[in-house]
Amino acid sequence: MNTRGNLFIVSAPSGAGKSSLISALLKDKPADKQVSVSHTTRQPRPGEENGVHYHFVSVDEFKALIADNAFFEWAEVFGNYYGTSRQVIEQTLAQGIDVFLDIDWQGGEQVKKLMPEAVGIFILPPSKTELERRLTGRGQDSQEVIDKRMAQAVSEMSHYKQYDFVIVNDDFDTALQQFETIIASQRLTCASQSYTHNDMIVDLLAE
Amino acid sequence: MNTRGNLFIVSAPSGAGKSSLISALLKDKPADKQVSVSHTTRQPRPGEENGVHYHFVSVDEFKALIADNAFFEWAEVFGNYYGTSRQVIEQTLAQGIDVFLDIDWQGGEQVKKLMPEAVGIFILPPSKTELERRLTGRGQDSQEVIDKRMAQAVSEMSHYKQYDFVIVNDDFDTALQQFETIIASQRLTCASQSYTHNDMIVDLLAE
Repeated sequence: MNTRGNLFIVSAPSGAGKSSLISALLKDKPADKQVSVSHTTRQPRPGEENGVHYHFVSVDEFKALIADNAFFEWAEVFGNYYGTSRQVIEQTLAQGIDVFLDIDWQGGEQVKKLMPEAVGIFILPPSKTELERRLTGRGQDSQEVIDKRMAQAVSEMSHYKQYDFVIVNDDFDTALQQFETIIASQRLTCASQSYTHNDMIVDLLAE
Repeated sequence: MNTRGNLFIVSAPSGAGKSSLISALLKDKPADKQVSVSHTTRQPRPGEENGVHYHFVSVDEFKALIADNAFFEWAEVFGNYYGTSRQVIEQTLAQGIDVFLDIDWQGGEQVKKLMPEAVGIFILPPSKTELERRLTGRGQDSQEVIDKRMAQAVSEMSHYKQYDFVIVNDDFDTALQQFETIIASQRLTCASQSYTHNDMIVDLLAE
């Protein structure tokens, strides 16, 4: 019996709880699930480890990887490069491990083009009021900063229809359970099961 | 908040345990799930109730319903007509209830043409040996009868790739759980969630 993992594109506006959901999903370090570790040219923040949080590389190294077609998707954000190594993901999926890509809609769109079987999950906050509350933070930011965050959130959310599944993160435990249901269901698709049970199915269909 | 049920096409060869899985799923009479009740021209068997197991109608009545385009799909099997009322299913889905169609691959194909969003689930036995064991029954049938059953099972199974999901019914409780996972996941698709949370999403995306 072979198994192949699925690639999940997980996107959300800030304030939807995406990071908390992914953390909770991977909390007990399940053997069949892991988050993709991106390459970046930005400086490590305190506590960030190379190879764990990111693969930290120089701009020249990053550009060489682009030239080698090594990235599944890459983007420049505020002067820093971020990219997802295609080879690392393919190897991980081949080991039967589900991989989670925590990326925005633009990255998701690129991945879907290269790998149409990737499964998109979009996480929405439960209401505009709740999103505003979450983005207001601890009252230390100006209205201008908050408005900008809201505009960015609305812009990101306007792409939710490009995703296969949507989770509304109202109650966290329910949202986590829905996340797990979606992931489990993708092991039961015809493509996934055909791969997993190939030998048995060949035998069943033999005259 | 509106909800709309999903239509599930459930197919399997004899001996895969389809009827037991559907029965177990509906055992506690969940408010959001029901099996579709077909029309048929065959005679009721002892214990079968009109409107519960089938809608029993005459051949003339059945033909009039065909002429009215009342059926989602219909077929003639061994001289009897069987059909699924389109209107009854549409009304049930509109009430937020998932409907399960227990039909063969030919019926499933017809339904998929008319309603591409219907979700196909195919149930497979765990091995050829186990299928043979299940189809042999209580040793009362001739080898010829058993061979014919096996050939029919292989013929039905050869269409499993037309289905969205596949369940391998090895351990019954696991298979039932997988059945429930698939059903639950379809409430989380983008189309389903867009419908359910339409007002909230419109509000979220308003500038």
